[in-house]
Amino acid sequence: MDIATSPLALPFPAMPAIGGVTLRVARARYKAWDRADLTYAELAPGTALAGVFTRNVCCSTEVEMGRESVAGGAARALVVNAGNSNAFTGYRGREAVEQITAQVAAHLGCSPAEVLVSSTGVIGVPLPKDKAREGVAAALTAEPCGWEDAARTIGTTDTFAKGATVSAMIGDVKVTLNGIIKGSGMIAPDMATMLGYIFTDAAVSPAFLQACLPAANAGTFNCITVDSDTSTSDTVLAFATGAAGNAVLEGQDSPGADAFMAAMQDICRQLAHLVVRDGEGAQKFIAITVTGAVSDESARIVGLAIANSPLVKTAIAGGDANWGRVVMAVGKAGQPADRDRLSIAFGGVWAAKDGLPLADYDEAPVAAHLAGQEVEITVDLGLGEGRATVWTCDLTHGYIAINADYRS
Amino acid sequence: MDIATSPLALPFPAMPAIGGVTLRVARARYKAWDRADLTYAELAPGTALAGVFTRNVCCSTEVEMGRESVAGGAARALVVNAGNSNAFTGYRGREAVEQITAQVAAHLGCSPAEVLVSSTGVIGVPLPKDKAREGVAAALTAEPCGWEDAARTIGTTDTFAKGATVSAMIGDVKVTLNGIIKGSGMIAPDMATMLGYIFTDAAVSPAFLQACLPAANAGTFNCITVDSDTSTSDTVLAFATGAAGNAVLEGQDSPGADAFMAAMQDICRQLAHLVVRDGEGAQKFIAITVTGAVSDESARIVGLAIANSPLVKTAIAGGDANWGRVVMAVGKAGQPADRDRLSIAFGGVWAAKDGLPLADYDEAPVAAHLAGQEVEITVDLGLGEGRATVWTCDLTHGYIAINADYRS
Repeated sequence: MDIATSPLALPFPAMPAIGGVTLRVARARYKAWDRADLTYAELAPGTALAGVFTRNVCCSTEVEMGRESVAGGAARALVVNAGNSNAFTGYRGREAVEQITAQVAAHLGCSPAEVLVSSTGVIGVPLPKDKAREGVAAALTAEPCGWEDAARTIGTTDTFAKGATVSAMIGDVKVTLNGIIKGSGMIAPDMATMLGYIFTDAAVSPAFLQACLPAANAGTFNCITVDSDTSTSDTVLAFATGAAGNAVLEGQDSPGADAFMAAMQDICRQLAHLVVRDGEGAQKFIAITVTGAVSDESARIVGLAIANSPLVKTAIAGGDANWGRVVMAVGKAGQPADRDRLSIAFGGVWAAKDGLPLADYDEAPVAAHLAGQEVEITVDLGLGEGRATVWTCDLTHGYIAINADYRS
Repeated sequence: MDIATSPLALPFPAMPAIGGVTLRVARARYKAWDRADLTYAELAPGTALAGVFTRNVCCSTEVEMGRESVAGGAARALVVNAGNSNAFTGYRGREAVEQITAQVAAHLGCSPAEVLVSSTGVIGVPLPKDKAREGVAAALTAEPCGWEDAARTIGTTDTFAKGATVSAMIGDVKVTLNGIIKGSGMIAPDMATMLGYIFTDAAVSPAFLQACLPAANAGTFNCITVDSDTSTSDTVLAFATGAAGNAVLEGQDSPGADAFMAAMQDICRQLAHLVVRDGEGAQKFIAITVTGAVSDESARIVGLAIANSPLVKTAIAGGDANWGRVVMAVGKAGQPADRDRLSIAFGGVWAAKDGLPLADYDEAPVAAHLAGQEVEITVDLGLGEGRATVWTCDLTHGYIAINADYRS
């Protein structure tokens, strides 16, 4: 099956080198394909590590071991396997991951816990140890490659390579954050998995890095949805090499901490949007802003209920300003809401206010807005000051085609 | 838009008369269509009433007023409007419903609270009072009609008329339960709404009827899903006229109460299945049984997570025994589960046991099972004794076509 590049794709940005990070790719041949499928990132000694992982209780071995590594706060290498998710493979899957961490640790002279592994692709098939061993050996000695090569290699059914770069000033030192991410194209029986990696030359303590990442995650990766399904392998890792030489960021009070946190937020938002832009069958990028909720978290839950509603997503696919379906989604979210205070706008034009359709509602500008690739829905609950924005894509025949019509 | 009859449709059953229930239909012309769209059921004095309603907090006026009527426990009439849901219409919508209850109450010499009203169809447009008044007047003097006429008239975009009948013995008295239901075809901007009505000639106290209905609802209507979206108008009402002359069922200890509760459960299950069989775009009827959960409720939540997963539903549409997607859905349900104890079967053939794909798994019988119209998925969590069965349909191009491609 050949999936066309998403109409919402963005070009890969020019991304500078990050001191302390060396990227290499190799062919482990996890599938019968003619492409690199093993990504290796070597990290300078002293690199701080942070991570956030899926809440899916049937998570993969890689996620379990990743959590243990994050507790240690230090990383020397990252290995990403594409084509085999190694999920639901029991002890055999764990043995394969332990083999990889041991092999890399021996090469670098570090602890196996400092080697992070992610895998994505077919499930239920233990990662083949022989292919992994040869792939890792090839990667360890391969020529260094660029960010776009790495971004393409971690992908599976992604339709474009996804990366972002952001910089920030910490005192008079410029630091850079580079991120690459994969998700969420999918072919049965593969699983959509979001794997994101952020590399920075900033000097950051592991504890502060682990504080920054979940904070940035909350309003970015946790605010996107393609189809409401949660992968068993979702992972976002952050690596800080310290090569920029700034005064180490130890906490929120460190000079420059605000700038770093803002940069982390920015790159996470950019990467999250790229995943939505490669959502299966996506034709439209939808931003849903909920205001007037009793709290920010309540606003986020209402926003996700709207974003996950198949009826809302199909309406947007059809260019239909169907605020009735938005009302329905608000009501089913289980959050405080009052039908008679609800107001709904598309592209900034209010279709309904205080629980009633507007008498003078002009559908023409709304129809023009919905015909575009970027759709904005605003919902005001009229209850409080809570607000959130979530992002999703529309639900189209393409989604059905990718997930039902084809089998690998 | 012409929607073909669901391939999962069942013929309308032969349904006997219910003493104390007279059905009539009329043309209120809520839409520009050539069909009856107002259903009127007259109920003998002394008819007991019970009801369960949507949990959507943006519910319709009809649901609010229905809850008040159920608190009274008595009903003399039911009016169902098709073509206009009267939802999100504020005080003007309430005025229209109050006009209907007053009109019928004056005719019957009863309290307006004893007149139940449901509406389904386009939202955001107050039910037109003049059409409602003329439609009700016509219905009050129309010739009585049969169950199939009534079942067809409460429908909107349903592709077939849906009814079921069950009988039970209470002592030596045979009682009958007849049910009709509508749902869940839909055309934008209409809302999918499930409206179900159960009529019985059994003599039942309002309190016991209101105990039986939620009990039956829990394992039937609350265990079906088409697309995870919850209508603002969902309603199931039960009316017991007492015409059968049995000793009044006052509670669980009344002789015959068990038989009546079993019959109520049976008819609710039949009606719930009919809604799934008319699910938008449905090609397959899917039963998902979860066993080994820590509780029945936990099993139901896990089952619904599987049933609502777009990835599972598209896999079934494609005839793909994708147990990996089932694992994913189990894990995201937020209920106790252990990846390494999970077993999954399709059509009774185990594909994975105790967290591992079976080495000798023969896909041929599974593929044959998935090629049929009735699909069974069994998930054993291996934790406890909790179990539940939920029902859904597959997710196909037909769903996208109905909800995105066409506009009214």
